[in-house]
Amino acid sequence: MPASAQNNVSKDPEKSKNTPAVKVQGLADVVALDSHIAFVNGKIGQLSYRGYDIRDLAQNTSYEEVFCLLHDGDLPNQARLDQVKEQLRAALVLPEGIWSILRRIPKDANPMASLRTAVSALSLFDDEADDGSPEANYRKSIRIVARVPSIIAAIDRLRKGKEPVAPRTDCSHAHNFLYMLNGERPGEMAERTFDTCLVLHAEHGLNASTFASRVIGATLSDMYSAVTGGIAALKGPLHGGANQEVMRMLLEIDRSGRRPADYIAAKLAKKERIMGFGHRVYKTMDPRAGILKDMGKGLGEEIGSLKWYEMSLEMMEIMKAEKSLYPNVDFFSASIYYALGIAIDLYTPIFALSRTAGWSAHLKEQWEDNRLIRPKAAYVGPQGKRTLPIGQRT
Amino acid sequence: MPASAQNNVSKDPEKSKNTPAVKVQGLADVVALDSHIAFVNGKIGQLSYRGYDIRDLAQNTSYEEVFCLLHDGDLPNQARLDQVKEQLRAALVLPEGIWSILRRIPKDANPMASLRTAVSALSLFDDEADDGSPEANYRKSIRIVARVPSIIAAIDRLRKGKEPVAPRTDCSHAHNFLYMLNGERPGEMAERTFDTCLVLHAEHGLNASTFASRVIGATLSDMYSAVTGGIAALKGPLHGGANQEVMRMLLEIDRSGRRPADYIAAKLAKKERIMGFGHRVYKTMDPRAGILKDMGKGLGEEIGSLKWYEMSLEMMEIMKAEKSLYPNVDFFSASIYYALGIAIDLYTPIFALSRTAGWSAHLKEQWEDNRLIRPKAAYVGPQGKRTLPIGQRT
Repeated sequence: MPASAQNNVSKDPEKSKNTPAVKVQGLADVVALDSHIAFVNGKIGQLSYRGYDIRDLAQNTSYEEVFCLLHDGDLPNQARLDQVKEQLRAALVLPEGIWSILRRIPKDANPMASLRTAVSALSLFDDEADDGSPEANYRKSIRIVARVPSIIAAIDRLRKGKEPVAPRTDCSHAHNFLYMLNGERPGEMAERTFDTCLVLHAEHGLNASTFASRVIGATLSDMYSAVTGGIAALKGPLHGGANQEVMRMLLEIDRSGRRPADYIAAKLAKKERIMGFGHRVYKTMDPRAGILKDMGKGLGEEIGSLKWYEMSLEMMEIMKAEKSLYPNVDFFSASIYYALGIAIDLYTPIFALSRTAGWSAHLKEQWEDNRLIRPKAAYVGPQGKRTLPIGQRT
Repeated sequence: MPASAQNNVSKDPEKSKNTPAVKVQGLADVVALDSHIAFVNGKIGQLSYRGYDIRDLAQNTSYEEVFCLLHDGDLPNQARLDQVKEQLRAALVLPEGIWSILRRIPKDANPMASLRTAVSALSLFDDEADDGSPEANYRKSIRIVARVPSIIAAIDRLRKGKEPVAPRTDCSHAHNFLYMLNGERPGEMAERTFDTCLVLHAEHGLNASTFASRVIGATLSDMYSAVTGGIAALKGPLHGGANQEVMRMLLEIDRSGRRPADYIAAKLAKKERIMGFGHRVYKTMDPRAGILKDMGKGLGEEIGSLKWYEMSLEMMEIMKAEKSLYPNVDFFSASIYYALGIAIDLYTPIFALSRTAGWSAHLKEQWEDNRLIRPKAAYVGPQGKRTLPIGQRT
């Protein structure tokens, strides 16, 4: 790669251009669009949705309320919340055609690949798939938010050789997912904890998956295309895939019988990365990590084991002292999902489950004032070559 | 939306930031990355792949040679070309699991949605799906390039109630696709024309679908995720979806019995858009349109009907005179695909078929020097709100 200022704004070296061009590798610090949805202040560790601090939302609202908040611009009153709950419940049951596809997914498939495929396939059984009206897009948002939990639970049960469990319509979104996954109703603490996890993961501004969704949506492709692209991006270990690695690390430490401090020291000596620490945006504690930390303690007390909580806390202290790095949202969510009995490779699908609210709200915003999102590449390859007959090529 | 300079580089209004930030709505004119693959000079109507002018490539190379060119950096010698042809042939047959999914797609599904779902599903039956090594990624590139034609042909035949046709291994990529689609071998002119169409659509720099692919790939998600996202973006009518609209327009003019000049005048009077003219990048004739124009004439003479060619030519002259707009690649490819007997709603899937070569080459380039692609959004929404008990919300 030719030299170019990393992360810095620099003049495009192509002198022949008439348009003013800036080059920013990876687009870091480039503002691509205006958004009314989430505000992330990484410097002071602040996150808000539509002006409400994430701590306030985590304490006082449900995932269904946050869906309304993200889509409508403010929290719902009781009538609006009842309406959304009813709309979500009415959409819970998967179309028959999806079942025939879900049942043909190999048991050892990556669940994110299965989810990506199933969400893409949902459009094949939705008569409104290519209706781009705001009303149809809202109905598709409801269907996607309602059906992704059903798909994830079905994927997990089918691969375990169990029959999928029909959704309940007398409980919350969080409760219903845990019920469909485990075949039994969750306790109050489990439900509340999981609901808060969904609230915390519902939205996070223009991250890579939301950006991918908006790039796709901006071609005026449909909502299923855009959400499928979001899932595809979230699958990457540099984005959503990290929470699974955190739990594998905690289990490795536990199995080894070593102290977390020794494990970290050995890793750092080998210049290896400790999963779940540091964030591209947050330069201090990710506010979501703080909320999850407290919840992890409560959940640990409830299930009678503070093992993962205490191990995590010890790691957090060491990383802060040694590397000045703070835990991110992945770090504490991993052990919470583990305590809830969720299979490790479902952590990223559950991230997607939460984020369907944010992706669909961003698509609504994108389509209200659409503009193609298409940056340029600086061409740095050869020029002026001529084809030779194939016999003369080296 | 608050005021912000459209298409202009402006200082981010958030004064509190420490990092230099630029705001460019839609990222127009922002250079996001360096690329060695394609050079597009819209001002003078020039396109080259790896330094070879598109006219030279269209005249002197096949799609298989262009695949090598895009991936390897230069045109293949005979040994390398033979190797790639053999690798493509060996990958042609679809995994059994894909058939069980393809056979469950509703007959009236949007073929781009079906293709997006099937390409995502390919990963479920590929043991190397999550192997991110360059060697595995190359093998996956071959599989995707080889299998997308088989998928498109299968989708089309199954929805028509016909049995899919097994691929041939004794002919070119272009020949084989037309054979699988129609169940009979194409003539020499048809094969050559279609092969050139594949060459012309194989790559076009950092367009919206290639950008979506690279955004997804940059999270270190897998190749199937990234190509699925590319298909999802190409589906949009502001990107690949336009070529289908061109043919519908030509058929509408033909059915109406009106002169193209009258049709255009009526449309322009109503300030309606004429499909297939103008391009975000090309400010003069798209070089691909010029090549296709000449091929359309040859094909018309071969099949004994110059009707579509002459109608297109007349429209081109009027649009140039009236609006100073030039035809884009979609304009002439539409009537060529029509003359080849291809269903109109397959034009965009065929665009994807060609572009698999470009997307996979871009992913190779992305992963050789990976960096997350994540611009920022300027938050312009409310701040400092507090949740109220639901009974107090309006």
